[in-house]
Amino acid sequence: MAQLINRQSRGVYIIAATPFTDQGAVDHESLRRLVDFYISHGVSGLTILGMMGEANKMTGEERRAVIDTVLARSGDLPVVVGVSDPGMANLAELSRYSMDKGASGVMVTPAAGPAREDRIEAYFHDVCAAIGTDVPVCLQDFPLATGLPISSALIRRLSQACDQIVMLKHEDWPGLAKISRLRGDETAAGTKRLSILTGNGGLYLPQELQRGADGAMTGFAYPEALVQTVALHEAGRREEAEDLFDRYLPILRHEQQPGFGLGVRKYILMRRGAIASAATRAPGPKMSPTDMAEADRLMARLARALQGDLPRL
Amino acid sequence: MAQLINRQSRGVYIIAATPFTDQGAVDHESLRRLVDFYISHGVSGLTILGMMGEANKMTGEERRAVIDTVLARSGDLPVVVGVSDPGMANLAELSRYSMDKGASGVMVTPAAGPAREDRIEAYFHDVCAAIGTDVPVCLQDFPLATGLPISSALIRRLSQACDQIVMLKHEDWPGLAKISRLRGDETAAGTKRLSILTGNGGLYLPQELQRGADGAMTGFAYPEALVQTVALHEAGRREEAEDLFDRYLPILRHEQQPGFGLGVRKYILMRRGAIASAATRAPGPKMSPTDMAEADRLMARLARALQGDLPRL
Amino acid sequence: MAQLINRQSRGVYIIAATPFTDQGAVDHESLRRLVDFYISHGVSGLTILGMMGEANKMTGEERRAVIDTVLARSGDLPVVVGVSDPGMANLAELSRYSMDKGASGVMVTPAAGPAREDRIEAYFHDVCAAIGTDVPVCLQDFPLATGLPISSALIRRLSQACDQIVMLKHEDWPGLAKISRLRGDETAAGTKRLSILTGNGGLYLPQELQRGADGAMTGFAYPEALVQTVALHEAGRREEAEDLFDRYLPILRHEQQPGFGLGVRKYILMRRGAIASAATRAPGPKMSPTDMAEADRLMARLARALQGDLPRL
Amino acid sequence: MAQLINRQSRGVYIIAATPFTDQGAVDHESLRRLVDFYISHGVSGLTILGMMGEANKMTGEERRAVIDTVLARSGDLPVVVGVSDPGMANLAELSRYSMDKGASGVMVTPAAGPAREDRIEAYFHDVCAAIGTDVPVCLQDFPLATGLPISSALIRRLSQACDQIVMLKHEDWPGLAKISRLRGDETAAGTKRLSILTGNGGLYLPQELQRGADGAMTGFAYPEALVQTVALHEAGRREEAEDLFDRYLPILRHEQQPGFGLGVRKYILMRRGAIASAATRAPGPKMSPTDMAEADRLMARLARALQGDLPRL
Repeated sequence: MAQLINRQSRGVYIIAATPFTDQGAVDHESLRRLVDFYISHGVSGLTILGMMGEANKMTGEERRAVIDTVLARSGDLPVVVGVSDPGMANLAELSRYSMDKGASGVMVTPAAGPAREDRIEAYFHDVCAAIGTDVPVCLQDFPLATGLPISSALIRRLSQACDQIVMLKHEDWPGLAKISRLRGDETAAGTKRLSILTGNGGLYLPQELQRGADGAMTGFAYPEALVQTVALHEAGRREEAEDLFDRYLPILRHEQQPGFGLGVRKYILMRRGAIASAATRAPGPKMSPTDMAEADRLMARLARALQGDLPRL
Repeated sequence: MAQLINRQSRGVYIIAATPFTDQGAVDHESLRRLVDFYISHGVSGLTILGMMGEANKMTGEERRAVIDTVLARSGDLPVVVGVSDPGMANLAELSRYSMDKGASGVMVTPAAGPAREDRIEAYFHDVCAAIGTDVPVCLQDFPLATGLPISSALIRRLSQACDQIVMLKHEDWPGLAKISRLRGDETAAGTKRLSILTGNGGLYLPQELQRGADGAMTGFAYPEALVQTVALHEAGRREEAEDLFDRYLPILRHEQQPGFGLGVRKYILMRRGAIASAATRAPGPKMSPTDMAEADRLMARLARALQGDLPRL
Repeated sequence: MAQLINRQSRGVYIIAATPFTDQGAVDHESLRRLVDFYISHGVSGLTILGMMGEANKMTGEERRAVIDTVLARSGDLPVVVGVSDPGMANLAELSRYSMDKGASGVMVTPAAGPAREDRIEAYFHDVCAAIGTDVPVCLQDFPLATGLPISSALIRRLSQACDQIVMLKHEDWPGLAKISRLRGDETAAGTKRLSILTGNGGLYLPQELQRGADGAMTGFAYPEALVQTVALHEAGRREEAEDLFDRYLPILRHEQQPGFGLGVRKYILMRRGAIASAATRAPGPKMSPTDMAEADRLMARLARALQGDLPRL
Repeated sequence: MAQLINRQSRGVYIIAATPFTDQGAVDHESLRRLVDFYISHGVSGLTILGMMGEANKMTGEERRAVIDTVLARSGDLPVVVGVSDPGMANLAELSRYSMDKGASGVMVTPAAGPAREDRIEAYFHDVCAAIGTDVPVCLQDFPLATGLPISSALIRRLSQACDQIVMLKHEDWPGLAKISRLRGDETAAGTKRLSILTGNGGLYLPQELQRGADGAMTGFAYPEALVQTVALHEAGRREEAEDLFDRYLPILRHEQQPGFGLGVRKYILMRRGAIASAATRAPGPKMSPTDMAEADRLMARLARALQGDLPRL
């Protein structure tokens, strides 16, 4: 049984894609293979049914089936389940289902509506009440996708007021100063530590680690790059961590394109043998022959870049 | 069996609220009462599971149950079903279910994403292909809610290219010139007529009718006001139509507040006996005692305003 | 010399249009006439160079000339000057110019940028430092136009921290509960009163007054309607205040359309003889013959509605 | 005298920062030094008074003074002037001033307002009429900053209808497919070629060149990286172009952060001796000691990366 996420959680929680067949059904066989792939690359945890997991295009039944398959395969690896939903009852039900099945926590993004911070603050209090105060929450702060910026002061207030809000999926952009500010807060007595895992496809991972992030929660199709960058950083080998990261940066920045990047990511996962089809559910990105050739080229360039001596732990 | 909506459809298609119990379950008994209420006030059609119907907070099962209850009660009144969904497969499945059960058409709003018109245009073509070309579509143009403005030129292109896009739910704001432009287009040979029903809570209904709208598709808790305004207008009694409308305007503009207005609407529907509880699903507006007293006062003022001689058809 | 605005300011501060000639020059002769027109209708103050004053389409010289003309004509009527600007130095310079010429305060809206409340809070502190702590500030809260919602908690924090932030131009929408919350705050010891004047074209003025607003700061082309509504309300004749207001509501809601409404407003001001031309500066709304006929009709309907007995103070 | 920009323009048009003194005045001495710096690194043109040039925080006089200084220094290098302004008259006047002083064209972004493509299309037609049909226009397509996405179909319509719209500053994101589509259009008879220079800080420059872009129009503080990447690409040495580019990518992606990145850029320009102070005008990004150390570290890493053999033309 996996541990619950907590305020000390660290490492790489990979955002898992959801594999579909070319006909659009959830491909559970590929999903199992994908879990194995992530585990084989040393991730510390999995996050499923996030935005990049196309959760909002699935039915409730399908989401539950994905939870079942992943949790049956992930062993004692912590699994965080994205439960964001326009309806609070659906959110709470999916949270309950996830925790019953052995999830380590849930991820929640603010519900759509005005960006006023009082509304967002009340929303998270309501979420905590609805799911039960024993369920650990990862708060996803992704204004580029949600249109809802949140100040570090509000994140801190929520972390202080709600014991269960233990983790931040940080993907405000630009957001480096936000990490410094949140870590700065924690030097004050009585301030609870937050686990901070960063998103944005990993685009600023070395800088984020240097400012105090605990790792990454993102979905790069080369999870080993994230894992090794974090490990080298934790070993105090910061320049080497960044040397390694920089070799992956060209393809990482290509995959990080909003919306379209999911197509690239699934294409690479398919080419790496982790899933059978690169299909996304409609409406979703489709790779043209040009797009595929471009991705192939970046993969080939990466392969060459990795031939030289690499820093390893 | 109700007629399908078409390019000549006119009158008032009332946007139906979805009644919930105080515990949050769909209240089917109230739903039947609400259908009767709308019919008794002379509406020409019903539109269910729209934004104000809180469809995005329901499960697929609940949506289908609402369709069943309404279509079992609505007799030969046309019913349009809102089928917008982040996932195309879910959208198509709900459309198929609706039409199989006897719906007269479906309503679709553009999927979230960049506001580029080429994306929106392609999306509607994909929708038409996915639901089948025999299903009549009402295109909902509501940029305040979707963040996706659409030019009249694009609406026209879609109406010309897709025979099944027969109706526009017009709620761009400001949008009076858009109606004039769309009707102006239709003087050109080969341009197909669009049924235009207007939304925005009815705030500009007399002006919209004068510019060529065919009626309203909105959810005011006094449907008789919309019905009589349209009827008087159609009878050529335009000043009287507006006289009548203006008596309702103070409470209509109160109900038209975005988001919060749904709370007002359900409160009035409850006070009028159409539904048992004013509850909305979380996250949703909740009426404070001040809000209720304010609504009571506006209802009392309306009752007094209606005591004088009213124009009637 | 007019009094500075303060935390007790009340009444109607009319948002003044800026008259242009058909060739696009500032029409100072009309501007003087317009000031006289507003004064003759009993307003308590003027607000110039706001959004509806098209300030962002004028050069610095033109803005200063408008300030000169208005302040030379307004006598002891308080004049608030909109000084919002993408650059802090420009904002501070215009503020200094305004106060030197005898303005009673300045109006500021948050600068464009992320909607995070920490950014907006810091911005207003910077503004206060830049313009000098002796300059009274009216904080404009207009998220529909700025895209920057502000919670009542932040407004309160700013009002408490900055003595000079004495007034709120309230036009969040929906925003009635915000007034109640702000007034509720003030029952706590040590909480400073805020003058709250409401905008949004006046669409909810009676409700806003009933919830504790001190008056209106908006630009309706029938300022007498706002003045009399506020006066009747202050005299405790609330139903009559609303009766009077409701007669104007049909044309007020027509003028309140965002963007386009400025065209209607200037057209009515021209037809009422307050300015020579209805021209707006490009890019700005232009009235088509249909638009003009529609406005004419609403003006004629208003004239008829006003023929009956009117509540008067 | 520099050539006007045209449909065949190519290379690197560097977006010039505007240097300020620590007190906030335009630093003309640094501006001259900066022009020399850009020229010494081989740029093909300059673009001044763009968003990153902080033009919206300057007065009209200041903008004209910047134009004077740059054009007196730039010799026969083409200079494009950003003239976007909320007011059409101001835009036209600045355009006239620029062209009179010897500019090679103007850059225009859509005016704020609804994102409907008909409005944006009409706006560009109005701009062309207002500035005169002999002034070459670079259309800036930057939805992340403007909130106004434009389809490639609209760009093409404008390019066909307005002979003077000769260049696209492409910075839609993701936008690679847009370049392919625009170049695909041009295989049709009668379709006029557009010069396409790409922005977004250069983040995807190699991919953009491979899809048919003519170069870059962005403001990276290492202009030589852009110049050499484009030169190697044009020489058919595509892998080497990308090898070189990738060495700069870590610091380029750091500088590309929206808003904050301008602080980084000016800091690097200062450290490279191109300007005297890294100050931005308020409200603008300020570099903390942590931010500066982080930038120093990335500069040092770049210096090391450049020590190996570099592909050169």
